[in-house]
Amino acid sequence: MPEPSTPVALPPEHPLNDGRTSGSALIRAYRGERPEVTPVWFMRQAGRSLPEYRRLREGVPMLDSCLDPAMASEITLQPVRRHGVDAAILFSDIVIPLRLAGVGVEIVPGRGPVIARPVRTAEDVAALAELTLEPAALEPIAEAVRLTIDELGSTPLIGFAGAPFTLAAYLVEGGPSKDHLAARSMMLGDPETWEALMAWTARITGTFLRAQLIAGASAGQLFDSWAGSLSLDDYTTSAAPASAAALDVVRDLGAPLVHFGVGTGDLLEAMRDAGADVVGVDWRTRLDDASRRLGPTVPVQGNLDSALLAAPAAVIERGVRDVLRRGQAAPAHVFNLGHGVPPETDPDVLTGIVELVHRSGAEPR
Amino acid sequence: MPEPSTPVALPPEHPLNDGRTSGSALIRAYRGERPEVTPVWFMRQAGRSLPEYRRLREGVPMLDSCLDPAMASEITLQPVRRHGVDAAILFSDIVIPLRLAGVGVEIVPGRGPVIARPVRTAEDVAALAELTLEPAALEPIAEAVRLTIDELGSTPLIGFAGAPFTLAAYLVEGGPSKDHLAARSMMLGDPETWEALMAWTARITGTFLRAQLIAGASAGQLFDSWAGSLSLDDYTTSAAPASAAALDVVRDLGAPLVHFGVGTGDLLEAMRDAGADVVGVDWRTRLDDASRRLGPTVPVQGNLDSALLAAPAAVIERGVRDVLRRGQAAPAHVFNLGHGVPPETDPDVLTGIVELVHRSGAEPR
Repeated sequence: MPEPSTPVALPPEHPLNDGRTSGSALIRAYRGERPEVTPVWFMRQAGRSLPEYRRLREGVPMLDSCLDPAMASEITLQPVRRHGVDAAILFSDIVIPLRLAGVGVEIVPGRGPVIARPVRTAEDVAALAELTLEPAALEPIAEAVRLTIDELGSTPLIGFAGAPFTLAAYLVEGGPSKDHLAARSMMLGDPETWEALMAWTARITGTFLRAQLIAGASAGQLFDSWAGSLSLDDYTTSAAPASAAALDVVRDLGAPLVHFGVGTGDLLEAMRDAGADVVGVDWRTRLDDASRRLGPTVPVQGNLDSALLAAPAAVIERGVRDVLRRGQAAPAHVFNLGHGVPPETDPDVLTGIVELVHRSGAEPR
Repeated sequence: MPEPSTPVALPPEHPLNDGRTSGSALIRAYRGERPEVTPVWFMRQAGRSLPEYRRLREGVPMLDSCLDPAMASEITLQPVRRHGVDAAILFSDIVIPLRLAGVGVEIVPGRGPVIARPVRTAEDVAALAELTLEPAALEPIAEAVRLTIDELGSTPLIGFAGAPFTLAAYLVEGGPSKDHLAARSMMLGDPETWEALMAWTARITGTFLRAQLIAGASAGQLFDSWAGSLSLDDYTTSAAPASAAALDVVRDLGAPLVHFGVGTGDLLEAMRDAGADVVGVDWRTRLDDASRRLGPTVPVQGNLDSALLAAPAAVIERGVRDVLRRGQAAPAHVFNLGHGVPPETDPDVLTGIVELVHRSGAEPR
């Protein structure tokens, strides 16, 4: 019988199986251990804040850059080289699986994803095409992963996928929105259509994540940008089951799975119960409070307030130390921001935070 | 000695003092009583959803309409006539006191308030002018209130003001923003400038509310649209004191004061402690849970999910009854939405909800 830490559904040459990443600080922390040094990475570390990214992306539309394996891989690697973070996360966009499934979607600069034909009715949902691992619609994603892990060595790559609620909100609204009123109206007023839409979304985003894990990602994170617009009741009834279904698509692979949402202080337990191994926490909830809610076996990830990144160095350092201290309340802690890196962030500030987090691991607490 | 229910700082001919509104269902509920019928009004009831409003506003910029006493009064009265709600709320905009204090601000349709010169430094804050009740910069507001209460009779008018954090967020960002990162960066990185800005904002929005109450409004509500972007620690340290200062500007008047914010489930106690008599609850938090957090003496207001307004009638009715049932857990309950009326709402749906809430008051529970 294989040891429980050997994911049997992944090939022997997968980084989790061939010894490359299974002993890394990130994977050990995701598995519930306390490595000597607290691992650290930043949501949105690959992208907008780096001058080398802005140069590379010049003139290339966002979704095209995600679907160009060499470019996506290079962008994924940039922050690892520059900051020395403990993980890469695949440069992608949560709407990529929509695009690969044939949905008309573009990223409009300054606005966000815009859906050509919003999904509003049962007929609209029935017309959505499936996305399968064969015959290779997902090959550009898998190729980007393979190129990336060849360079990463022992640094794990995290697979990236949007949670079904956030994707469904974009599909129904047709673009970004404040309270996701049209999506929530469908959820409350036409639950059958909503459930069909969420089931489809769970399948395609789960398949997107599966392609990344099989190609060599060592962990996966589900991002639910908009879950915070839901009451706990509505989240539990009408969003969490689809997050669970998306995670179920990859569970047999045995890679650790992270579930993160924004504004989800009251939803943390439900996000855990959707089948996450690790829960990401935004800047609003103290990590020790979050860990109290999540219980003694759930590693947490987070949650330095991105608004601190523009503050004087001493204020940042105090914030980092506070997050590290509160993270001690959890069985394991992966340091991160409470949300994505803002575009105007000074990259040196991020590098300094990585050094501080790594240095702090060696200090007595 | 006057009875405690007689606000001594208001003139004898004020509706709270001359018997017009002190016995109304709204004021009794705000004072902690349970009138025979649950009072009901809707945030944003005056405005976008009504065809008579759209006709009246045609060609008139938003802030101009707020500063035209006859037009603001007529818009304020429209939903009372149409829906039979138990309160009017002055048609205004939270940036009106900024405009009256000389800040360059416009409402850009589809975007929201845009500030001509964002406030970013200590010098910017020092350059902000004061707003005083004399010599009558606030006269258009007071006149709108007087015109309105002359028509309202025994229906109370609620005064309207933005909370300091939300106003400060607009001032620093220069317009609407998602996470109010620039404002929160100033808050965390330059707390002295932030405190000066918040103190100024509290004074002008408090003065704006005071003008409405003195002119005849029977209650006041502070709206904190963006407070939900703050952690409890940051809210308590850096936002709540300014909300308290704004409420202090009007406390001597003795009118009931409501404090409402969006996404503030974890902030409810702090909002109460800022000196509110009543706490408004958004759609994310069940009223019985909110009341448990707020304790046995605090009336609650809310919180039907606006996303339900587009649902089939039976779904809306179930939602209304659920809110009424959960509201029974509080000492007193004023029915409202959990956020503003969406522009595309069918006005007849709102009228139907008023009838249902009033009818339900007479039924055994």
